[in-house]
Amino acid sequence: MTGIDDLPIRDELRGKSPYGAPQLDVPVRLNTNENPYPLPEPLVERIAERVREAARDLNRYPDRDAVQLRTGLAEYLTKSGGYPLGIENVWAANGSNEVIQQLLQTFGGPGRTAIGFEPSYSMHALIARGTGTGWISGPRNEDFTIDLAAAERAIAEHKPDVVFVTTPNNPTGNAVPAETVLALYEAAQAAKPSMVIVDEAYIEFSHGASLLPLLEGRPHLVISRTMSKAFGAAGLRLGYLAAHPAVVDAVQLVRLPYHLSAVTQATALAALEHTDTLLGYVEQLKAERDRLVAELRAIGYEVTESDANFVQFGRFADAHTAWRKILDRGVLVRDNGVPGWLRVSAGTPQENDAFLDAVREVKKELGS
Amino acid sequence: MTGIDDLPIRDELRGKSPYGAPQLDVPVRLNTNENPYPLPEPLVERIAERVREAARDLNRYPDRDAVQLRTGLAEYLTKSGGYPLGIENVWAANGSNEVIQQLLQTFGGPGRTAIGFEPSYSMHALIARGTGTGWISGPRNEDFTIDLAAAERAIAEHKPDVVFVTTPNNPTGNAVPAETVLALYEAAQAAKPSMVIVDEAYIEFSHGASLLPLLEGRPHLVISRTMSKAFGAAGLRLGYLAAHPAVVDAVQLVRLPYHLSAVTQATALAALEHTDTLLGYVEQLKAERDRLVAELRAIGYEVTESDANFVQFGRFADAHTAWRKILDRGVLVRDNGVPGWLRVSAGTPQENDAFLDAVREVKKELGS
Repeated sequence: MTGIDDLPIRDELRGKSPYGAPQLDVPVRLNTNENPYPLPEPLVERIAERVREAARDLNRYPDRDAVQLRTGLAEYLTKSGGYPLGIENVWAANGSNEVIQQLLQTFGGPGRTAIGFEPSYSMHALIARGTGTGWISGPRNEDFTIDLAAAERAIAEHKPDVVFVTTPNNPTGNAVPAETVLALYEAAQAAKPSMVIVDEAYIEFSHGASLLPLLEGRPHLVISRTMSKAFGAAGLRLGYLAAHPAVVDAVQLVRLPYHLSAVTQATALAALEHTDTLLGYVEQLKAERDRLVAELRAIGYEVTESDANFVQFGRFADAHTAWRKILDRGVLVRDNGVPGWLRVSAGTPQENDAFLDAVREVKKELGS
Repeated sequence: MTGIDDLPIRDELRGKSPYGAPQLDVPVRLNTNENPYPLPEPLVERIAERVREAARDLNRYPDRDAVQLRTGLAEYLTKSGGYPLGIENVWAANGSNEVIQQLLQTFGGPGRTAIGFEPSYSMHALIARGTGTGWISGPRNEDFTIDLAAAERAIAEHKPDVVFVTTPNNPTGNAVPAETVLALYEAAQAAKPSMVIVDEAYIEFSHGASLLPLLEGRPHLVISRTMSKAFGAAGLRLGYLAAHPAVVDAVQLVRLPYHLSAVTQATALAALEHTDTLLGYVEQLKAERDRLVAELRAIGYEVTESDANFVQFGRFADAHTAWRKILDRGVLVRDNGVPGWLRVSAGTPQENDAFLDAVREVKKELGS
């Protein structure tokens, strides 16, 4: 029987497994940082309405430049980020993964390298591999903050073409201070100059502000965003970026033409109409996130400071055993492979209660 | 003012322009091989219904493996292609462009090469560039058929990792005989072995049959398809492939997780429910395509044999001037850069009449 290894696949793919969290059917799923609140019914109806309209033209290719959608995203960023942006600053794709893939196809690729400070969003390294970009794993401090001096040395030494900064960081939850990002940007300009991609997938959940205003006068800075989390639309796959207009022009050299379907554009536009309602859920989730942090600490766990819709907690002698014991109690959290730590997404109050009950028991069972 | 050239983009992108046909607002648009028939209203309603349902779960990630959709596509291929295929043989992505990108990320990429026989679908070469795959432009005969002996020599000489065969070919319209594809497959196996990707985007419009049955016993063969043309859903961006299950496993090593949104999956499933109606339009378009061929010849044009929903016609001393003169008469056709030739998509009978009136006048104006 022919298997993958009998095919002429690229050597670096041999023995690898597809990325993805286990999709298990359990009562409480807090493993993929989804927003636990379904879209409100008026928005569901509005999506059906807008998609019906789009479907009447579905025999035609979609707007290749997604003008209406990018305009709407620019308005949202301007309003929420405190920094004026127009359509010329915004680009959208099928999930922030595709945004990042396009950026690496443009600024990374064969013979070039990218650096990230790990543990961080593991797709950065995987998309680097998928685009032939060399990957450099940069350091972090023991408390998961970025070790700025070490990071600056790594950038000076490796002269990467792309520098990734994830803030709030996934899976650890902590935000990166603006001064750190600025220092990394300066280091990257001195070394190469390289592009700095700030992944703000979880920024709406942060105690602090977006780094969008840093775009001023920094054409090598890119901020990536998603509608998966704050907009409660993981199923929509809508990622976007904000940057200097030249960056938006540049990614169009590698984007697949008509990459963003008419139904995706219609659905995203409907969601943008309901921004205020959706951001209301974000406030609830931030409160629940803060409760998780406090209660986990009260139980006796160590918790990393969180500015996201998830919380990293530990430490475990064997995180995978703890993951399994929590799962046995009907709660699915995430083992990201960070030794000693697990990650839990903020769910509804009821889901979080179920999670806290489970980890209270596990704490007793495993001892302190 | 910072422009693209001030950014550290890859050298091979410098001076390039984004791919895409001019999007002009003219009465008759026959330039992108779209299906001129809007989806029937019951299907539009069914799409709205299925998307409404999907929107209620939009806070969750979509089915990463698109199980229901791939099952539906496998059923369609089995029924229409005369060769039994299951979900394990089928993979889907955002347009056949993304399917091809995933295939090149898996089987092409840095240090590897792909060959196509040009003129052909120009995205093959562009996606090769975007994935760091070296591109080899293979030959064709003067009549745009594949010069088999020359193609076999090119494969033996260059030992490409991927061989593209487009049938029916775009932009020329002619189908490639099964024996030619088989001979190319054999040549590719002898040379490397390499993967052979048969792009059947337009196969439903062909006088002949799909090459799906050739998959039997050929694990290095991939057939790519799309819902953009026969299913009248260019706006949906749904491409797919049929191949040995090992190929489906392999592309999952490079696919972006959750690449296919819940709304895309819902819309495609709705369209599959209406397959019979949509294929009825295909029959009308085939008849119109045959009429275009006959009438263009009666007017005095040369026409390449067409098995697609478009027709290549010429010859012009200056194809671009002819393109402009046709556009001046309110009809947008495509100048694909094939010297002496233009391409027209089969539209509705009224659109085709308008086109034929225009080219009759242009013929008189330009002389014979």
